Amino acid sequence: MNRPRQKIQEDPMSSHSHRIAILLAAFGLAATLGLGCGPAGEGGDALRPATNGSAGGSISALMKARGLSEADVEAALKTYTPTGGRDEYLLFASGGHGGQVLVIGLPSMRILKVIAVFTPEPWQGWGYGDQSDALLRSGDRDGQVLTWADTHHPALSETGGDYDGRYLFINDKANARVAVIDLEDFVTKQIVNSTLIESDHGATFVTPNTEYVIESAQYPAPLGGGYAPIEQYADAYRGAIILWRFDKEKGRIVPEESFAIETPPYMQDLADAGKLASEGWLFVNSFNTERSWGGNLEGNPPLESGASQNDMDYMHIVNWRRAEALVKEGKTRTIAGMPVIPLETAAAEGVLYFVGEPKSPHGVDVTPDGKDIVVSGKLDTHGTVYSWEKVKGLIDAGTFDGKDPYGVPILPFAQAIRGQVEIGLGPLHTQYDDKGNAYTSLFIESKVAKWSLADLKLIEKIPVHYNVGHIVAAEGDTVSPDGGYLVAMNKWAIDRFNDVGPLLPQNFQLVDINGDSMQLLYDMPIPVGEPHYAQMIKADKLKPIEVYSPVGTNPFTGEVDPDAVVAGKEDVERKDDGVHVHLSAVRSHFTPDIIRVKEGDTVHLHITNVEQAKDATHGFAIGSHNVNLSLEPGEHANVTFVAKAPGVYPFYCTEFCSALHLEMAGYLLVEPK
Amino acid sequence: MNRPRQKIQEDPMSSHSHRIAILLAAFGLAATLGLGCGPAGEGGDALRPATNGSAGGSISALMKARGLSEADVEAALKTYTPTGGRDEYLLFASGGHGGQVLVIGLPSMRILKVIAVFTPEPWQGWGYGDQSDALLRSGDRDGQVLTWADTHHPALSETGGDYDGRYLFINDKANARVAVIDLEDFVTKQIVNSTLIESDHGATFVTPNTEYVIESAQYPAPLGGGYAPIEQYADAYRGAIILWRFDKEKGRIVPEESFAIETPPYMQDLADAGKLASEGWLFVNSFNTERSWGGNLEGNPPLESGASQNDMDYMHIVNWRRAEALVKEGKTRTIAGMPVIPLETAAAEGVLYFVGEPKSPHGVDVTPDGKDIVVSGKLDTHGTVYSWEKVKGLIDAGTFDGKDPYGVPILPFAQAIRGQVEIGLGPLHTQYDDKGNAYTSLFIESKVAKWSLADLKLIEKIPVHYNVGHIVAAEGDTVSPDGGYLVAMNKWAIDRFNDVGPLLPQNFQLVDINGDSMQLLYDMPIPVGEPHYAQMIKADKLKPIEVYSPVGTNPFTGEVDPDAVVAGKEDVERKDDGVHVHLSAVRSHFTPDIIRVKEGDTVHLHITNVEQAKDATHGFAIGSHNVNLSLEPGEHANVTFVAKAPGVYPFYCTEFCSALHLEMAGYLLVEPK
Repeated sequence: MNRPRQKIQEDPMSSHSHRIAILLAAFGLAATLGLGCGPAGEGGDALRPATNGSAGGSISALMKARGLSEADVEAALKTYTPTGGRDEYLLFASGGHGGQVLVIGLPSMRILKVIAVFTPEPWQGWGYGDQSDALLRSGDRDGQVLTWADTHHPALSETGGDYDGRYLFINDKANARVAVIDLEDFVTKQIVNSTLIESDHGATFVTPNTEYVIESAQYPAPLGGGYAPIEQYADAYRGAIILWRFDKEKGRIVPEESFAIETPPYMQDLADAGKLASEGWLFVNSFNTERSWGGNLEGNPPLESGASQNDMDYMHIVNWRRAEALVKEGKTRTIAGMPVIPLETAAAEGVLYFVGEPKSPHGVDVTPDGKDIVVSGKLDTHGTVYSWEKVKGLIDAGTFDGKDPYGVPILPFAQAIRGQVEIGLGPLHTQYDDKGNAYTSLFIESKVAKWSLADLKLIEKIPVHYNVGHIVAAEGDTVSPDGGYLVAMNKWAIDRFNDVGPLLPQNFQLVDINGDSMQLLYDMPIPVGEPHYAQMIKADKLKPIEVYSPVGTNPFTGEVDPDAVVAGKEDVERKDDGVHVHLSAVRSHFTPDIIRVKEGDTVHLHITNVEQAKDATHGFAIGSHNVNLSLEPGEHANVTFVAKAPGVYPFYCTEFCSALHLEMAGYLLVEPK
Repeated sequence: MNRPRQKIQEDPMSSHSHRIAILLAAFGLAATLGLGCGPAGEGGDALRPATNGSAGGSISALMKARGLSEADVEAALKTYTPTGGRDEYLLFASGGHGGQVLVIGLPSMRILKVIAVFTPEPWQGWGYGDQSDALLRSGDRDGQVLTWADTHHPALSETGGDYDGRYLFINDKANARVAVIDLEDFVTKQIVNSTLIESDHGATFVTPNTEYVIESAQYPAPLGGGYAPIEQYADAYRGAIILWRFDKEKGRIVPEESFAIETPPYMQDLADAGKLASEGWLFVNSFNTERSWGGNLEGNPPLESGASQNDMDYMHIVNWRRAEALVKEGKTRTIAGMPVIPLETAAAEGVLYFVGEPKSPHGVDVTPDGKDIVVSGKLDTHGTVYSWEKVKGLIDAGTFDGKDPYGVPILPFAQAIRGQVEIGLGPLHTQYDDKGNAYTSLFIESKVAKWSLADLKLIEKIPVHYNVGHIVAAEGDTVSPDGGYLVAMNKWAIDRFNDVGPLLPQNFQLVDINGDSMQLLYDMPIPVGEPHYAQMIKADKLKPIEVYSPVGTNPFTGEVDPDAVVAGKEDVERKDDGVHVHLSAVRSHFTPDIIRVKEGDTVHLHITNVEQAKDATHGFAIGSHNVNLSLEPGEHANVTFVAKAPGVYPFYCTEFCSALHLEMAGYLLVEPK
């Protein structure tokens, strides 16, 4: 798989360049690419190579010096964003098992922020102060402290099936959790966690008005936890689809208004909500309908082969409005504190239907008009296009091919699909543009396929490097995709970048999908975690705040904190629960800058950054106490610790704030008892 | 400070562009920039804007559509790196209070890796398995678990004063720690920690052959910890300069061969080792010779004003070879387990000298030939250039201006300097190129100044955005700087990027320093932590490994682990200390994939990734147990945990490794007692 650079240059770039050259010749614009303007040799000799390039470097000399093709020059100018320029789109990518979320600007492909979500992150003071620590701890399971997550699928909040730029949701596959991020300040505000299930994968996906955030289990287990022998897998193990109720005004999930639907012990995978024509319904695919559970050291086949025997698994077709009604009617069983619609009820009452899907399906993606559902099977070579009209017709007519072992009606595959398109090896995920095209990632081929929704014809494939998982197009899973850009999220980088040891970055490749043929624009290494899915939103849909106002705001309540500090009113107070210190932070000092306590004291620090200038952030760190806060302009934070050992501990500002930043320091003096 | 984009375009870019236009006209190359080739309007109309750009976009149309100036086009072509291309330099930047290290490729300015150092990082399994957790815990202080750091100054190992590409060192200002990273696999191998001091800042810096890694205290405290009233600051508080002995063959610091030099309670700041002419000596500057300690709520001036009264502070001139000899002679006192040369001994025995430095000094940077030392004062407007020849002459002749309150001889300032260069407001740090030029960052002016070492004349200034701290040039602090590139590490971004809430990224700006005038090439947001210093090394000096070989290697010992697993020899064994499971990982299964234990069992997992294909990394995560490992090809890892609660816990591979990656999973079955 180790392809030398030259090879890459020939394939696909130079054939592509060749096409451009012809195109440009036709336009009479070849000269504008600066080729052979004046004796190339002369130009080249007259100027030093780019890495020694003088300000007088010509394009042809730079191209020669840096080995840039015509396509490279075009790509450079389509992505380069000068100082002070803005990116047109923001990409919200999961941080994989880094447990965070990445915010990336397009087309420049620069990481603008890492949002701390499930993993402590000291730059943001995330997990090093009272509020954020309490939020992280709210995500613990059964008293087990969890300090990481495997984030997979971010979902932007929607109104009318379109991104509204207000909230972002992200799941934790490893521990079955969901987080809520407010895009006003890009801060995580809530982590919810149901012990109903042990892991998730089909999460997070939202309904068209963000009524619900969907979280589907991946690896079956006894619902609500507890032990059951693996030999009872078929009877005692179950999956579930959780619908978390979201309150868009409060910006929080409402657990007490949330519910779940029990599913068979197949491995539920990705999901997508119906929209427009199919609004009110939900589609979840699955693999391992074989109900294999491994046991490869005990004489059984490993899961990879055990789960790959059937030609078809089942797409789960869920009527969530009907499910909502059943919950209101109380037709639920409460497990792990959550109302659950039992499998037999779901099957009997028109909540859950199945239809076959080939083979080891992975992606399920509803078209922008909501009329079709596209499924790809990891071991298949097709995109299978289900017609919602046909599916709904079969359901209404009660036309079934029998039931699965758990009584769920199965729709006849042949009558449910509009057709199939032959796209290649290892198809995974599909996104859409504004011209009626679909784009599907091909993991095994390391390509992205472009095909026509109208006639289900393959149009073109472009190589990506390497082993692409998800792809994302501009607003490409909404009711109104933008087209323009597509990002291939490649799992393997191999030979794309400088070597940095055995652990390599992932590779996001930016593809221009405006033209008649797709054009690779940029390779971007992802230096932490393995992003799975991402969503791309027009930047002007976001309206983030610049400072916290009024001064003293607690980001987690949105209110002025009861302990907020007003400049000039700082104090030290000894109470029953310990020493309370109210500090202010302003360039270039904390007040007070000397804190005197006694050995064993519980110390409560209440700190307000009293500044309102944009970017005037201060940090607050105390040596040897694992305390570090980030105080954005106007922000208030509290931190509590025990002054265990007598000593002299410097504290200081960790954000270079001013010329006298190093002098923005003080001492915590812990006097012996 | 909020400058609109157009303003930036005029200043400095368009004046610069103007110069280019003239230059190119002279070369007769204007056409090669594609300007006005054919009626611009026509070209423009014929093609859609870049963000809707078709493959046939001409340069002029793209420039128009994306608002690119001629200088922008040149910058784009000097930085854009096509798919499969390699970066010429690697930048190792501190991750600030993120506690990690960033690896960035130049000129593309892409983050290739985040190296986990002091902060747990699940993607790398850092702190989620036995070996890395033990390493992190080795950095705890007095039993206080520390899960973050404030990393400031990375130092590449040197041979003969030049980078040798073998190791990287990084300090933790908050907790006075130093870490060692092996550049063979980009993994942190050691954290050392002396409770002699409470914080550092003048760290890390290496001597020309990496005999020692320097760590200087910042905020004075009683040496070795313990309490003393702040009112006894002048008598009971001290600073120290630690020289950590480094064994280049073993790749580890040797604490038992390390020592320290006691210093007065001034706030020691940055340091640099002498080289060539000045080899064997060390230069450390300081501020707060006023010995102010704040107390602003108790009627004292805050440190920022208390520490800014004197016109001069003291550069510390240290004869480290002499110090080495004194340690051998046993002229030390042992504090916190470390031999310390007492202040009076250092002053009396020719180890420590002072010379005045104006005003509130910050950076001290030895010139490539080792003949000069450049110091900048935060509240000064000069670069002050000390002549090593003069300094050494004064020391040898015993020409002193008296002594400081602690008996340290003070050299006469006027006779020690070669001269001063007027460079501007808030000068901080200086780096060098291959043409005899020095570059100094100007924090208050938000500029980088270029000046001539030979005649101490200011040549040019370039605006940066905004509030630049450190700067780094290609190998710019070695005996042989490369020139070419300079990066300005700007503390404030303000209006440079899309808004992402109140907490903004830092801004690294890449500057081309080859030409007669400096050219701004690229703005790079830094999305986590606040990098302080960085070092830039020619990429071909690094020779990282691609896989761990032989299979079963433990990265922390470099040896095959005693519990390494051979494919086909996996087993489960119950011993006195719990259940030992030897697992292998290979695409696409773990063996065993079912682990049966009893409630309360201590479980020891020993996992080997038996693959040897580059980039064939597997993860290993267990839900609800806070276990997550990263297993690079050939790597062996161990993890121990207690199976507290009965239940069924999925485990799976967290690195998308193959088409059947989702099937690379199993169950931990915890049976009730």
